[in-house]
Parts: sequence; structure tokens; C-alpha cells
Amino acid sequence: MARIVMKFGGTSVADLDRIRNVARRVKAEVDAGHEVAVVVSAMAGVTNQLVGYCQSLSPLFDAREYDAVVATGEQVTAGLTAIALQELGQEARSWQGWQIAIETDGQHGKARIEGIEGDELIERMKIGQVPVIAGFQGIGPDNRVTTLGRGGSDTSAVAVAAAIKADRCDIYTDVDGIYTTDPRIVPGAKKLSKIAYEEMLELASVGAKVLQTRSVELAMKERVRVQVLSSFSDEPGTLVVDEDEVVEQEIVAGIAYSRDEAKLTVRRVPDRPGIAAAVFGPLADASINVDMIVQNVSADGTTDMTFTVGKTDFARAKQVLENARAEIGYAEITADQNVAKISVVGVGMRSHAGVAGTMFKTLAERGINIQVITTSEIKVSVLVAAEYTELAVRALHTAYQLDA
Amino acid sequence: MARIVMKFGGTSVADLDRIRNVARRVKAEVDAGHEVAVVVSAMAGVTNQLVGYCQSLSPLFDAREYDAVVATGEQVTAGLTAIALQELGQEARSWQGWQIAIETDGQHGKARIEGIEGDELIERMKIGQVPVIAGFQGIGPDNRVTTLGRGGSDTSAVAVAAAIKADRCDIYTDVDGIYTTDPRIVPGAKKLSKIAYEEMLELASVGAKVLQTRSVELAMKERVRVQVLSSFSDEPGTLVVDEDEVVEQEIVAGIAYSRDEAKLTVRRVPDRPGIAAAVFGPLADASINVDMIVQNVSADGTTDMTFTVGKTDFARAKQVLENARAEIGYAEITADQNVAKISVVGVGMRSHAGVAGTMFKTLAERGINIQVITTSEIKVSVLVAAEYTELAVRALHTAYQLDA
Repeated sequence: MARIVMKFGGTSVADLDRIRNVARRVKAEVDAGHEVAVVVSAMAGVTNQLVGYCQSLSPLFDAREYDAVVATGEQVTAGLTAIALQELGQEARSWQGWQIAIETDGQHGKARIEGIEGDELIERMKIGQVPVIAGFQGIGPDNRVTTLGRGGSDTSAVAVAAAIKADRCDIYTDVDGIYTTDPRIVPGAKKLSKIAYEEMLELASVGAKVLQTRSVELAMKERVRVQVLSSFSDEPGTLVVDEDEVVEQEIVAGIAYSRDEAKLTVRRVPDRPGIAAAVFGPLADASINVDMIVQNVSADGTTDMTFTVGKTDFARAKQVLENARAEIGYAEITADQNVAKISVVGVGMRSHAGVAGTMFKTLAERGINIQVITTSEIKVSVLVAAEYTELAVRALHTAYQLDA
Repeated sequence: MARIVMKFGGTSVADLDRIRNVARRVKAEVDAGHEVAVVVSAMAGVTNQLVGYCQSLSPLFDAREYDAVVATGEQVTAGLTAIALQELGQEARSWQGWQIAIETDGQHGKARIEGIEGDELIERMKIGQVPVIAGFQGIGPDNRVTTLGRGGSDTSAVAVAAAIKADRCDIYTDVDGIYTTDPRIVPGAKKLSKIAYEEMLELASVGAKVLQTRSVELAMKERVRVQVLSSFSDEPGTLVVDEDEVVEQEIVAGIAYSRDEAKLTVRRVPDRPGIAAAVFGPLADASINVDMIVQNVSADGTTDMTFTVGKTDFARAKQVLENARAEIGYAEITADQNVAKISVVGVGMRSHAGVAGTMFKTLAERGINIQVITTSEIKVSVLVAAEYTELAVRALHTAYQLDA
């Protein structure tokens, strides 16, 4: 007997038939002897509609009211799923964030969970009742409804799993696991049976958007074993677990790519101490996330700084830099939105040399020019022209022997 | 300066433009110096959709889950209306039932309000903030969301008005007031400037479905002055007030009709003590409301009992009586669904004789046969064949000199 959290995303509860399907899956786990808590998202499309309402009424809407409005989507699904379970003869009840309570900080629209009272949920599960919890929401210190940001139901599920000391948190989604790369680009991409938290974090943040990044961070911190699997098949999915649990670790777990970034180069800035702060300070003040950064070797007392920002922040970032031109003292800004970031990820890199070298050599053989390089302990990322995305991903997938 | 509750029904908040219109109306009252609290229904169609979801998943759905699901409609409107008010520069915030709290009993799906904490709402209003309250909902003793039954937002509004000691409760709807009869039948029907609570109750329960009956009962008990008016015009509406306030009272306030009832006759039941209990006991046990009842004079030791039930209960009522045939000992049941109930209502009847006589004479002159008669202190109702509905209403409207 295990204690399991089952989380179902928007496409898994998109209509009443799918909610019935979810109920059958949940009941099957209970019938197999497990204690089950369920976390649900809003029915596909509902959250977008509610967000659209708020934006239409006021571009600068009050985030507290936005939260009160959009959190209703999950409340509907939780109630309907409880009804569907009861119809199968399975005892169940819905829980809204404030009822449990899922306590968060007061950052409306992107709140962080601070604590979940798990004892009553455990008691209910012990007597055979399935708690069906509205994901994505909590209650703030002002006693008002908060939401956790898009994809927040993943984080709800992991936080509930930690609070009730679950053996596993199953995240049902529209993909059946984590692959070595995007199967639309490499049809021979393999599904991973296990992946380390750190790898999942790097893959999630560079484009394999299966789980909300924060949910993986939380799972790693709380040591919650997460499984990503499909609600439309019976195949086992991918377990996201502690590095130690990933036996027979490949050096490289996967190849990720992202076309969501744009490149900016600030040319001929004076090469003096504090210049990086002068460039990136105003961007930080405007809440613009900067990802890859390179600064080339100084010539003639000036240098060029190249970095990437999310495409949605691109126009704003340019404006911020133009406004700060006097303070920074650069010659010009050049920009390129036709770029892609390709990343090789694997915890095995820590103990194996030559991973970056293989990457550079492989891309060079295909004539792909590398514009920017960044590395972390378990990741090497390069920026290339967007048109090479598929070619680069395929070549690297083969080079690291990931093909099936 | 007055303190006003403004309640907007589903058609008044049916889309974003109408919500903006509501916000303008509310702001105009605040700008005129009044303290305003707002109560809103779900956007038109939303509640029906959510109810449909529950019914599709389970014909015998758990009313507690139903409440959790359907209450979301009002939460959405409350948040959106607060945003629309803020966009006009008017401070506002939404309140859900559990936040105020609006405490109810535990009858999920048709809960009754037991108490509302009004002090914080009053404080907010005093500093210029408009509370926007989700109607139709409260919180039960089990700490779960309850709903008040269809039309319950009217009752929410009246209860809030009582709790914050409002000078008036304005119910905005898609009609602009209470008329002497249905203007679709009598184009010359007059809008009443004032009507007594008791008259409104009789008119509401026999077909002029503008306000939820319970809201009028509550307004009468708490002496809340209610105004019914249109959110699409600037005309004053109809004030529903204490009888003493209705000066120049006409003897008859209005003519109502209902085609929602069906007639059942139990023929040749033994005319003995306890027979009425034998007939109506099983119906009461099945929660079937019986309205008009007549028992004719006994012949040959048996009698016929005729009564009406709501058309929605008709098939069930017949079944209940057939099951109880042995105990009751009747010869047969005859039924007629093609009937209409016509009612003449007015508190003036208390001090004026001849109202019923005028009714019977008027109908007789038109050749309309009366099947059943019932009377109360302020109402005379007759059952006639449905095809005579319009003729009867028009003739009575003229007979009581209500034509404009």
C-alpha cells in the first residue's frame, strides 16, 4: 500500500468524459489498495477565458481580484471530479485552497506556498475518502484567495504530497513522460524511465515545459518522488527522483532547445569596473530576466556585451537600455530574435570530462556557428541561428548515443 | 446621504459591457454621496451550464459538491465587477460568502441565511470602498460553501441590506418594476410605484417571478425597503414596502396568472374522518407541494377531492397516489394539465367586500367556467381552462379599473 497524489492537468479534465476517465483512474488506484489524494487544474481553456475577462476590463487589473476570478476554474473541476468519483461509488470530497488551508504569501498572481495543513487530509484518506484538491490556489495572509502562477497546479500537487508524506506524486499530463529530446524533432527520442531533479530543472527551464519549474524545485527540496505520465495511456511514465536513485546514469540525459529567447548586444561599452552593473541593473529594476551573458575580451578600452532575454521582454529590454544610454555610454545596440538555445543536460557531466568538447565538435562538423556559450555543472548551452535548431538537436542526440 | 445595496441579476452582468454598465451605475450612486454595497449574480447562462455539468455526471449529485461548483459563477462576477469599478477610479473589493461571512444552515442547495457579519462591510463603506458581494452563496456549519437556491441572490441582497442597516435595497433586473399584470397580455398594464410586501409575496408565488419569494419574506421580516428596477433604464422602479407606506391603496393591486400547475382529482374516496390525511400525507412525505384544494359535498358516502400540484411534480404525484390506492380506497384518478390559475391580489381586500364577487361575475360574463376556488386574506384565486388565461386576465384588469 502506498500513499499517492494524482494530479491532472487541464487537458486531462477538458470535458465531462475526461473527468469521468480521471475518476476511473483514481478509483483503480484506490481499489489497488492505495491511499489517494487528487489535485486538479481548471478545464482546458477556462483559465485563459477568465484571464481574458480581467484583461479586457482593465489592463492593470488588481491581482487580488484576478486571483478571486481565475481560482474558480479549479474549484469547478474539483467539485465535478468529486461528483464523478461518487458516481463510481468512491467516497470523495472537494477542497478549496482556503478550506485545507494551503497558506501562501501575499504575492497575488504568483504566490508561493508557505504551509499546508495535511493532518485532516490524511485522516480522510485513512477512512477511504479521496480528497479532491483545487490546484493553483491558496489563501494569503489577508484571508483572500491567491493563485500560484501559470502551471501552479504542479506545485500544489508536490506541496500536498510533501504535506501528507506521500510516497509518490503522479503528474498526469498530455505527454507520457520525459524524452531525451522533443520527439517531433527526433522521432527516435527515448522516454526516460528516471531523471534527476537537477536534470529536470534544467530541461524544464530550457524548453521541455512539462512541469512548472517551481514544482521541481519544491520536489527536490522536499524529496518528493514525482512521476510524469499520460492520462490517456496505461504506460508507466518518467520518475523524477534524487540523483542517487538514477542507476545506470547516462552522461547526458537529454537535449533541450528553446526558441523563446532573443539576443541583444551592447557594443563598445567602456571596459571599466561596474559596467556590468550599469547594463544589467536597469534591466533587473524592470524585472527583466537575463539568461546567457558573455563579455568579450577588451580592445581599445571598450568591450561588447551580449546577452539573451525572453522574447516577451525583448521590446521592453531594448527600451530600458536606450533610456540608460547616457549612464552606460555604449555606441550602439544590435539585436537578433532569430536565435535558438540548444542545451545538453546530464548530472553525469560532473564526473565525465569532454561533454562540452563533443558538443562543439558535433556542431562544427555540421557548419553551425556558436554565438554564445554558457555552462553550469550539469548543462552546456549554446546560442545558434534559429534555422539550425532541428539539425543541431538531431546531431547532438546522435552524438551522445541517445537514439533508440 | 443614504446607505444602499444594489443587486444586479444575471442579465445585468451577462457580458463585460454590461458589467462596465453596472460599474458606472454604482459609481454614479457613490458620486451622489451614498454608501453603496453591491451584490451580484452569475453571468447569464453560467449557472445553468454548471448545473448541467453536475447533472450530467450524476443525476443524484452530492449537493455539497454542487454548491462548490455552482457558487463559482458569482465569485467570477464579483471579482470582475470590482475590477470594472477600480478601472473607473472607484475603490472596490470582492467578497465571497465565506469571507464576510454569510453564515447559513447546512441545507446544501437550498440553504437559509442565519447571520451576516456586517461591521467590516460598514467600515469599508465608510472609507469609500464599495464591497462587491458574491450573491447566492454562504458558508455552512461544516465550513463548506452553500448556495441559497435559484434566485437566491435576491435573498443575499436583502440579508446584506438588513445586516448593514441599509436605507434601501435596489434589485436591478430585466424588468423595470412590478406591473398591475403581465404587460405582454395587457399592454395597458400600469407600473406600480409602491406595493406592499404581502402583495408582492402573493404576486411572486403565483407567477410574477421578479423576486425570489424568500427574499420578500425576509424583507418583510427585517423591514428592508426593496426597489425593483431595470439596469437598462433610468426610470424609477417599484418600491416594495410596508403596507402603511402604500398611500392611496387601490383595493386590488394586480392580477397574476400561472400556467405551472396541474389539476388532480381523486374520485369517490370514502367520506370519513382522516381521509384528507390519507390523500395528502403520502404527497407531503414525497416533498410534493399541494396548492389549491377543494372537497365537494358528499353523496352516497363518497366524495371527490380536487387539488393542484406544480407541473414538475405532476408525474410523481400521480405515482404516489397510485401506490397509495389501497390505503386511500378511491375509484379513480383524473388529471388535467391544461389549467391556469388566475389570482386577484390586494391588501385593500381586507377592508372591502365584494372583490371575489366581482371576479366571479366578470368571468361568468365571459363564459369562463371556474374549476376550483381558493381565497386568502388578500387574494382570490381561481383555476380555469388554460385557453382562457389571456381573456380572464384582461377582463379582470378592466373590471378592477387597473387599465391605464
